[in-house]
Amino acid sequence: MNTFGRKLRLTTFGESHGACIGGVLDGYPSGVQLDFDAINSEMARRRPGGRSNVSARNESDIPQFLSGINEDGTTLGTPIAYIIKNNDMRSADYESVRHAYRPSHADFTTQMRYDIRDYRGGGRASARETAVRVCAAALCRQLPALRNIDVQAILQQVGEEEDKAMIEQLRNAQHLQILENSEGYEMRFQNLISSAAVDGDSVGGVVLCVINNLPAGIGNPVYDKLSARLAEAMMSINAARGFELGAGFDIAKMRGSEANDCFVIDTSDAGKVKTSTNNSGGIQGGISNGMPIFFRVAFRPTPSISLEQRTITDDKKEVQLSIKGRHDPCVAVRAVPVVEAMTILTLADFLL
Amino acid sequence: MNTFGRKLRLTTFGESHGACIGGVLDGYPSGVQLDFDAINSEMARRRPGGRSNVSARNESDIPQFLSGINEDGTTLGTPIAYIIKNNDMRSADYESVRHAYRPSHADFTTQMRYDIRDYRGGGRASARETAVRVCAAALCRQLPALRNIDVQAILQQVGEEEDKAMIEQLRNAQHLQILENSEGYEMRFQNLISSAAVDGDSVGGVVLCVINNLPAGIGNPVYDKLSARLAEAMMSINAARGFELGAGFDIAKMRGSEANDCFVIDTSDAGKVKTSTNNSGGIQGGISNGMPIFFRVAFRPTPSISLEQRTITDDKKEVQLSIKGRHDPCVAVRAVPVVEAMTILTLADFLL
Amino acid sequence: MNTFGRKLRLTTFGESHGACIGGVLDGYPSGVQLDFDAINSEMARRRPGGRSNVSARNESDIPQFLSGINEDGTTLGTPIAYIIKNNDMRSADYESVRHAYRPSHADFTTQMRYDIRDYRGGGRASARETAVRVCAAALCRQLPALRNIDVQAILQQVGEEEDKAMIEQLRNAQHLQILENSEGYEMRFQNLISSAAVDGDSVGGVVLCVINNLPAGIGNPVYDKLSARLAEAMMSINAARGFELGAGFDIAKMRGSEANDCFVIDTSDAGKVKTSTNNSGGIQGGISNGMPIFFRVAFRPTPSISLEQRTITDDKKEVQLSIKGRHDPCVAVRAVPVVEAMTILTLADFLL
Amino acid sequence: MNTFGRKLRLTTFGESHGACIGGVLDGYPSGVQLDFDAINSEMARRRPGGRSNVSARNESDIPQFLSGINEDGTTLGTPIAYIIKNNDMRSADYESVRHAYRPSHADFTTQMRYDIRDYRGGGRASARETAVRVCAAALCRQLPALRNIDVQAILQQVGEEEDKAMIEQLRNAQHLQILENSEGYEMRFQNLISSAAVDGDSVGGVVLCVINNLPAGIGNPVYDKLSARLAEAMMSINAARGFELGAGFDIAKMRGSEANDCFVIDTSDAGKVKTSTNNSGGIQGGISNGMPIFFRVAFRPTPSISLEQRTITDDKKEVQLSIKGRHDPCVAVRAVPVVEAMTILTLADFLL
Repeated sequence: MNTFGRKLRLTTFGESHGACIGGVLDGYPSGVQLDFDAINSEMARRRPGGRSNVSARNESDIPQFLSGINEDGTTLGTPIAYIIKNNDMRSADYESVRHAYRPSHADFTTQMRYDIRDYRGGGRASARETAVRVCAAALCRQLPALRNIDVQAILQQVGEEEDKAMIEQLRNAQHLQILENSEGYEMRFQNLISSAAVDGDSVGGVVLCVINNLPAGIGNPVYDKLSARLAEAMMSINAARGFELGAGFDIAKMRGSEANDCFVIDTSDAGKVKTSTNNSGGIQGGISNGMPIFFRVAFRPTPSISLEQRTITDDKKEVQLSIKGRHDPCVAVRAVPVVEAMTILTLADFLL
Repeated sequence: MNTFGRKLRLTTFGESHGACIGGVLDGYPSGVQLDFDAINSEMARRRPGGRSNVSARNESDIPQFLSGINEDGTTLGTPIAYIIKNNDMRSADYESVRHAYRPSHADFTTQMRYDIRDYRGGGRASARETAVRVCAAALCRQLPALRNIDVQAILQQVGEEEDKAMIEQLRNAQHLQILENSEGYEMRFQNLISSAAVDGDSVGGVVLCVINNLPAGIGNPVYDKLSARLAEAMMSINAARGFELGAGFDIAKMRGSEANDCFVIDTSDAGKVKTSTNNSGGIQGGISNGMPIFFRVAFRPTPSISLEQRTITDDKKEVQLSIKGRHDPCVAVRAVPVVEAMTILTLADFLL
Repeated sequence: MNTFGRKLRLTTFGESHGACIGGVLDGYPSGVQLDFDAINSEMARRRPGGRSNVSARNESDIPQFLSGINEDGTTLGTPIAYIIKNNDMRSADYESVRHAYRPSHADFTTQMRYDIRDYRGGGRASARETAVRVCAAALCRQLPALRNIDVQAILQQVGEEEDKAMIEQLRNAQHLQILENSEGYEMRFQNLISSAAVDGDSVGGVVLCVINNLPAGIGNPVYDKLSARLAEAMMSINAARGFELGAGFDIAKMRGSEANDCFVIDTSDAGKVKTSTNNSGGIQGGISNGMPIFFRVAFRPTPSISLEQRTITDDKKEVQLSIKGRHDPCVAVRAVPVVEAMTILTLADFLL
Repeated sequence: MNTFGRKLRLTTFGESHGACIGGVLDGYPSGVQLDFDAINSEMARRRPGGRSNVSARNESDIPQFLSGINEDGTTLGTPIAYIIKNNDMRSADYESVRHAYRPSHADFTTQMRYDIRDYRGGGRASARETAVRVCAAALCRQLPALRNIDVQAILQQVGEEEDKAMIEQLRNAQHLQILENSEGYEMRFQNLISSAAVDGDSVGGVVLCVINNLPAGIGNPVYDKLSARLAEAMMSINAARGFELGAGFDIAKMRGSEANDCFVIDTSDAGKVKTSTNNSGGIQGGISNGMPIFFRVAFRPTPSISLEQRTITDDKKEVQLSIKGRHDPCVAVRAVPVVEAMTILTLADFLL
């Protein structure tokens, strides 16, 4: 239940307000010389406080590796275990919600599922668990099988503000250069996010992810479709509410003659088989067709808001609740590297 | 790769134009007295020709059970295997596409994946495989653990025409009565579909699925979220291009104060915990909260159209292709019972 | 529960006295041109009546393939499903044991497990299920990855009569030629088996299996040891009661200086690393070391005997029971090809 | 590959001479109030130095729990992760074997498998890994579903010295009281073990394990037999070379009339169904029959001996090797609690 992947398996553990969180990555090949700076740099991208728009918790988030790596930094082929310390816990922040179910949080459902819960920070349901995924993916980016495959995610929508041009380009099978400068790009949504924060509120968003250079023929035709596995991976991210591949929900509005991607021979690219449009998003029948794969993941607004809300307590009393503490006003911002991470873990599982 | 589920596992086999398709359902409890009429009735719902708007292939689709059932129709607890004969094959229809890759079909990707393919009817990628899923789900509907759980899907959108009121009601946590008359409801989209067919074209659609009476506490908090498993199940259906839970992509446009579902005590329903709205679609943190679960699944237009299209052959020549034969003008119509089936198989896996 | 293997998965179904038994082999690569005569020849080895010492049921045991194979006999990479008809059922033979639990059979335990059972022939517990395994292994013998690997099993002991020289040779790391004539070899045990049959009794036996030409480095160091997986595979065969690798239980009597297999360089074989003895049976730390792998599997005497025995009925009455019908006097005889089959399936799962 | 179990999954990590070893136990139910003294007491049983006959490494072996447990010691239902520090490493002991493959160790096979190895102490192949299993089993002993089930292992044979009476009693379906005093019992083998140690040698042994009070009906009839799963679990223990259930290899020497266990009604025990003998060892057709389950596991002599042996180096030179350092003269002694642990983990997986 806490394991992702079949051939390359990531098992994660740890509650958000315990001593640490961590993971065990099993199936990672031997003989890979790891670049730890690259790993820490990926961790920094996800870290709250690492950039604006995210919550101010100062977690250093440096993974401590416990196994699977030789003295010289080469992988042994044995399970790679690591922990990430939780060194900035303010449990007091959670005292007010000890008995109240925060609306649209996992408090109530966790209680129903386990008949017990760690009220501090959400336990396993906390977004903090995603740091473990980002670390595993940072390891996987260094796999020889993945080095040429380019996975980039970007914030494509916040609230009503959406960059539709980006999707248009991808659907028209054009190369999308803009992704290379994503940090700056997000500034576009700054006002919307800040404005929600000032109001004690939060705002939703959509993350776009593009996979370049994945060869044709990856995936399986029935239950183990690449599209199904990506959907599962994305919907396993906290606050994810929707997944669409290629033209996605828009394709439902189209006719076949408009939606179909015609095969062409690209004489300018060594006679490679391509499609003239890419409404399919690079996957047909569950298997990659060699075109860029792209998909969008919808994220709900952060449910923790300081505005007052109605809710109930665990002894079934109705109360008014204003949630204090440091919370990202737009969870989609921090989801960007997590979408990338889950994409990489999904691809690694198919490619190993 | 051809198995769905963990505790209750459906393994399917068979190419669309071989002798038969079939499945093995392993993990089904012993002692269930099966109602075969109910199974055949479910099969009839999915069958082409079983109603208008679907292709005219006359498949009787009566499953033949090979194992797992006692002489008196009671399950033995052993694997239930069944086959469904392919008795109306017109391979000649496929001769023209023997060497051409049909646009947006799985022909090209199957060739890339396996280096061989059955050009007749799409092999495993054919929608015919879904008949095996519907049969397995029909068996699961009869499980004691699922008898009180109500799963209903309906065609909610065809092309640009969408029934938004239905979603509004669900998001407002109102009881949705309309589902009970789904056959008649689909007539609304008749003109759009017929018009596409007359043009030799096809049209996309969206299926809405609602689960009523699922208790709170079903699902898991991290990778094995109920929402992630439903997304995987839906995206494993042929032609599915998007999945959204509750308010889905719309929630990305909202602020937290608008999106959050406040907990209330329903004094008119024995003090049950409910939410005043249901933007979450009945799942929070991957676990059911006791409210109706609802989600939408986007289906692309049928890629087989008789209008002429550009494509290439397997020896990399560019050709014009007009696809003959019997094809559903709107694949979403026949997807309705398949969405239900995959929902039931997913729930059965969690509930057993 | 009815699936064997992880990467190459065999799912079996069917009760011994239903219409058929069968299997689905998923994960078999595409592009293998199958030799059906070779498959039928393997089936004949296992068949009762195919040679002396086995029960007289005349099952033709020709598998009928339902999927996964192209018109020209090449595999498609999709699941290979097949059925084997049960065409010589004498259910009447089982009428006398309809309510009695046969001693040392699975009747009582099946009733306890499922609260229902097919009294005719043992249902899933029947040795007939092993025909499905033999067919799957016959397919796997044709995999390119296994073609050079030689797996041979032989009846090495019946009752008190044991061929110890064979084990001595293997433990001394000598090449074992005798396996090549196994049919004739079994004649040695003829008298013991016939004598038990004449008495209305049965007799136990031990099957020895040798794997030649498996490269070093196959297996995993902890739970997924090659030795552990072989033990599981062998103990999943009906009537198996023990598994020992290399010197097995005898090694427990030895000192380390006697038991250890010293590494040597074989200058006569291109400087290959070998061991001077092979008490380890070719596996060290769960991983193959390149030496022949050998193991013994103990089989209990057939529990069905015509001699009178005490037992109880399903309404808890004590009765005397004499079991009629055709039964192998020595189940180990027919287990020989099944031991080979399970060995091949285990290796295929590691090598694919 | 480093995970044991299906429903209750133990994933282990850590090399014997790294910072720590550890495990993640996933699937453990919520709401169990843990007794940590009982866990530490189980750990002490396995610890080298915890009693005579085992190596003198002074590992405190107190597990440090990282997750899954509430402040008050109650389980949360989330993964329970723990580490055990390696605080007495003498890597210098291993310098002499840095380039030599120790006979009958996993050095050579690990090199073949991974093309890299941690020469210090055997890495994952070290018996130290079993401490993680003992800790997981100590947690499982406290599960409500296992509390009434009694699992006891004992050293039943060392070298040629064997306690046959114990097996006789079990095969005759008599209650075996002797297990309750196992510590004292092992003294019997003291001289044999000490004598091997004095000679710079080691000696093999056999561990007997008895499960009392397991209800009838546990296990599955085909690949997932309780016997097959126990065999796999036992053969996954370091140095295990054989597994036999009930009469085991002896049953191969018997006739059916002698081997069969007749069913009787035990009027002195509430009319419970029993068998008059227990040659089957409590499992028939892969499913428990309610009688005591017993099996023997053969362990090879410790391969590390100080007597001089021939071997080769990793650059293929032949050398003489005398292995220094602290090593158990009889690995079977320390295997006793590990056999119990793997039995408990196997049962827990079936019973949850």
